[in-house]
Amino acid sequence: MLRGIFAPIPTPFIDEEIAYGKLEENLAKWGATGLSGIVVLGSNGEQPYVDEDEKVELWAFARKHFPEDKTVIAGTGCESTRATVRLTKKAADAGAQAALILTPHYFKASMNEAALERFYTDVADESPIPVLLYNMPGNTGLNITPPLVKKLAQHPNIKGIKDSGGNIVQISEFLRDTPDDFVVVAGSASFLMPALVMGARGGILASANVIPDLCVRISELVSQGKYDEARSIQKSIIHLNRLVTARYGVAGLKATLDMIGYFGGMPRRPILPIGDNEKAEIRAALEELKVV
Amino acid sequence: MLRGIFAPIPTPFIDEEIAYGKLEENLAKWGATGLSGIVVLGSNGEQPYVDEDEKVELWAFARKHFPEDKTVIAGTGCESTRATVRLTKKAADAGAQAALILTPHYFKASMNEAALERFYTDVADESPIPVLLYNMPGNTGLNITPPLVKKLAQHPNIKGIKDSGGNIVQISEFLRDTPDDFVVVAGSASFLMPALVMGARGGILASANVIPDLCVRISELVSQGKYDEARSIQKSIIHLNRLVTARYGVAGLKATLDMIGYFGGMPRRPILPIGDNEKAEIRAALEELKVV
Amino acid sequence: MLRGIFAPIPTPFIDEEIAYGKLEENLAKWGATGLSGIVVLGSNGEQPYVDEDEKVELWAFARKHFPEDKTVIAGTGCESTRATVRLTKKAADAGAQAALILTPHYFKASMNEAALERFYTDVADESPIPVLLYNMPGNTGLNITPPLVKKLAQHPNIKGIKDSGGNIVQISEFLRDTPDDFVVVAGSASFLMPALVMGARGGILASANVIPDLCVRISELVSQGKYDEARSIQKSIIHLNRLVTARYGVAGLKATLDMIGYFGGMPRRPILPIGDNEKAEIRAALEELKVV
Amino acid sequence: MLRGIFAPIPTPFIDEEIAYGKLEENLAKWGATGLSGIVVLGSNGEQPYVDEDEKVELWAFARKHFPEDKTVIAGTGCESTRATVRLTKKAADAGAQAALILTPHYFKASMNEAALERFYTDVADESPIPVLLYNMPGNTGLNITPPLVKKLAQHPNIKGIKDSGGNIVQISEFLRDTPDDFVVVAGSASFLMPALVMGARGGILASANVIPDLCVRISELVSQGKYDEARSIQKSIIHLNRLVTARYGVAGLKATLDMIGYFGGMPRRPILPIGDNEKAEIRAALEELKVV
Repeated sequence: MLRGIFAPIPTPFIDEEIAYGKLEENLAKWGATGLSGIVVLGSNGEQPYVDEDEKVELWAFARKHFPEDKTVIAGTGCESTRATVRLTKKAADAGAQAALILTPHYFKASMNEAALERFYTDVADESPIPVLLYNMPGNTGLNITPPLVKKLAQHPNIKGIKDSGGNIVQISEFLRDTPDDFVVVAGSASFLMPALVMGARGGILASANVIPDLCVRISELVSQGKYDEARSIQKSIIHLNRLVTARYGVAGLKATLDMIGYFGGMPRRPILPIGDNEKAEIRAALEELKVV
Repeated sequence: MLRGIFAPIPTPFIDEEIAYGKLEENLAKWGATGLSGIVVLGSNGEQPYVDEDEKVELWAFARKHFPEDKTVIAGTGCESTRATVRLTKKAADAGAQAALILTPHYFKASMNEAALERFYTDVADESPIPVLLYNMPGNTGLNITPPLVKKLAQHPNIKGIKDSGGNIVQISEFLRDTPDDFVVVAGSASFLMPALVMGARGGILASANVIPDLCVRISELVSQGKYDEARSIQKSIIHLNRLVTARYGVAGLKATLDMIGYFGGMPRRPILPIGDNEKAEIRAALEELKVV
Repeated sequence: MLRGIFAPIPTPFIDEEIAYGKLEENLAKWGATGLSGIVVLGSNGEQPYVDEDEKVELWAFARKHFPEDKTVIAGTGCESTRATVRLTKKAADAGAQAALILTPHYFKASMNEAALERFYTDVADESPIPVLLYNMPGNTGLNITPPLVKKLAQHPNIKGIKDSGGNIVQISEFLRDTPDDFVVVAGSASFLMPALVMGARGGILASANVIPDLCVRISELVSQGKYDEARSIQKSIIHLNRLVTARYGVAGLKATLDMIGYFGGMPRRPILPIGDNEKAEIRAALEELKVV
Repeated sequence: MLRGIFAPIPTPFIDEEIAYGKLEENLAKWGATGLSGIVVLGSNGEQPYVDEDEKVELWAFARKHFPEDKTVIAGTGCESTRATVRLTKKAADAGAQAALILTPHYFKASMNEAALERFYTDVADESPIPVLLYNMPGNTGLNITPPLVKKLAQHPNIKGIKDSGGNIVQISEFLRDTPDDFVVVAGSASFLMPALVMGARGGILASANVIPDLCVRISELVSQGKYDEARSIQKSIIHLNRLVTARYGVAGLKATLDMIGYFGGMPRRPILPIGDNEKAEIRAALEELKVV
């Protein structure tokens, strides 16, 4: 259920309000690809900009309008333990099949290993659905270390980790230190192949919104031992991946979706839309991959 | 109204619920000191752990139970522009006299100067009360630069900045680049005197919860040109200040309050309370300052 | 000549003086392994602690006492262009077959892309032997970016890059952007397999001093498409690798050599030898790998 | 002897060779200012680009051609203890009156507090002249902590510290933790006044090469309690200071000297000279200060 390629979908807005019609159309398109599922309200869903009521509605809507045989994961992490537990329960009620839980991070200096261990244990104890750890040092300034992952992997309701840090040594250590059914997934398409080669089970990838089938293809080729072909695709997508992640973020990802027949639209403020030069750069990268 | 020493007060909890009775007692004590006012739901108020309804109730309660001639500032910054505007309006309705607005920071790479300029301008345009910028790089991973402060200081509703970064050169640049009535305040007691010497108008200081009158004394001595005495007090408080900020954070501050006759209590989870060794270290620092 | 596994050998000292007899014995042992060659006066050779005359003597000695069919690479990078050119010429005269050139880094803010491009071009123009770029952000605080590597790879005398940063995406970009005969080598055994899978040609690995044949084995298994076995060895060596690199550095590496029949000895000061607890930790890691 | 304002002078080069005639002229000019002395072969002297023989000659030359009643400090720090001791003895023989010793830093992970304590103790034990610690985190990536300074200040031959990090809290801690005759000096003009106000005894300032008498004036005004005037000058020099330090480094400093009647010339490579736009920016800053 948690294996394969997942798209952490953006939340579509028109005039700052959620555009459910557009979302339904997007879901239909992603549903027709090789994706194993989606994450609703991960970072690319602008989760910190979405109110609690909106979140619950989004999870229910997505579950309802996405193919039943594919998985819907909810991004439910908040800063406090109580809010995270509350949202995770609501996500489960709304039909989400797993919860992706970001590290609380505002009080960085207090979020030591003991605090994070307690946080994830408390949440997993209370969660009606399986929990995935979410390591996103670029946004949070915190790292979930291998020793902590090793401990947390023993909890019966903690089923895996999404790692967006991309430190391939650390990913290897997660894989070395956890049982086979603990799912390590790549958090960016830029290191999908090396992560898979070391034993990762898939990816939750911003790029999977744009080039789902190329991402799925890399995964299949690695499974089949066809490394030369996988490597060639892997190298070819790094540039586009950077444009829709580190370089232009959610605004870049949304502009990209607009170019390929999905609805992207504007992010909520304070994120500003990207300009024409940035769009041209993205378009060139899409053309190079023959996506437009 | 924004000058002098302010305490960013902690939010008291019993069994994870806000303890209004304890808060009322604390407010009475702080109200009897030389403080110019308080910040309700700054970082030390555990603002990311407090729900929106709770926030509004806290602002109203604090305004009602704190001396009328002292200022109540509300920490209203959220990640999205819309939520920040909404909360700032609610804070004004609840009686807060100014809003302290943290930089949105989750999408660090997107929070460039243009985005932050737009964010603060949008919020200040809509805010019924004066806005203070809040620069807290240690928690946010972002810095508000001198050129941005220079621009924003021209907005009629942006009245100052709290700087918790402590880069004294940058503080000097803020003071060089803004008009006299733009209020720069130190965000930590550890650099209160050097900031005042360069022209800062006061401080919003975690330590002001614990040693309000020593902080006020530094400010008075600098105003009077009595630098030798100010320097001596300044040096004496750095150690305690570190314990209740960088080293042990909100949990340390709360434990400290419990030692000096205020109610501190436990932080909301995932912040863990500090242990006995840490408490002994704090007690020793308090004894050195003759506070206990 | 630059492909395969290389050991960046430590410089043996007795009472702070170079112990050539011990070095000769070590060289004979490494020469009998599957290593393709050695680097003399890389970081693990304590190059910043070795005087210019000593360096020249070491290169000549190593070339003389190491098997002729194996490669000797000299670490010749200095802060100034003129010293780097001078040392590189001396290394060539002493018989070194290639030069590994660290980024100059003391004046970090001045070492922009233009300065580094000019530096490497100047050195490669003057060097009688092929030049390898050496990217070591952990020690230098600087990174050689993919666009710069792409440019420099066009120089006829710049033949490759050792990357010790371990960012697998960046390594993939180096491989994407350079011709097939430009040699990218892993700078640490902890990411040897993923680097090889993406197209790297080998590694210059501190661990190759200690477990040369395990490192060679990973390389062979990847070449043969035996990924499961390679992955298993790769995971097994990460822990030991950390102990002899990031955690205990040169002092740890030298203590390890003393445990396995080589001469390690003491580093030059100010590096302090490791203590008994650290040695026990290393011994346990060696036992786990059945090296002792 | 170590109090007051010092200029860490650049080393003049013509065609990459030391230009002693130009140096003599510069020394005569600096000698006629209010400077207390100079540092020969600090960072601004491009010390990592200067060979050992050249260093010794430079120290002797500077001592010979600089007014006898002013102090010449030699930058003698190297990576190894043995080289640092050797150079410090040579500097003393050449007439230098104190040695400024940078933290060794290439092996950052090994340069823990114990290693640095041993390093500075070893050097101070052997040095015929007083030792100044040199904390330069921007270039070295390492910080000398207050607890270490406290310990080292007890050594009879360690007489002070130059701090270029500019953390005013840490500077305050150095001053809190060391005896009155331990000299703390600011390492940049940008925080000269706040450091003096907290008790620093002077500064070793890149800007003191360009505006020696303004720097001296700040120091005098603070001594006289004329804080308003001092503050005004302090704020006015921050911009120029940034241009000749963080922004354009040694190349910027040298170009600036060329504009004001000193000889600046070119840095040794790999540092590149600055361009015309950068020069215009500096010229404007000089004009604002009425220096040209």
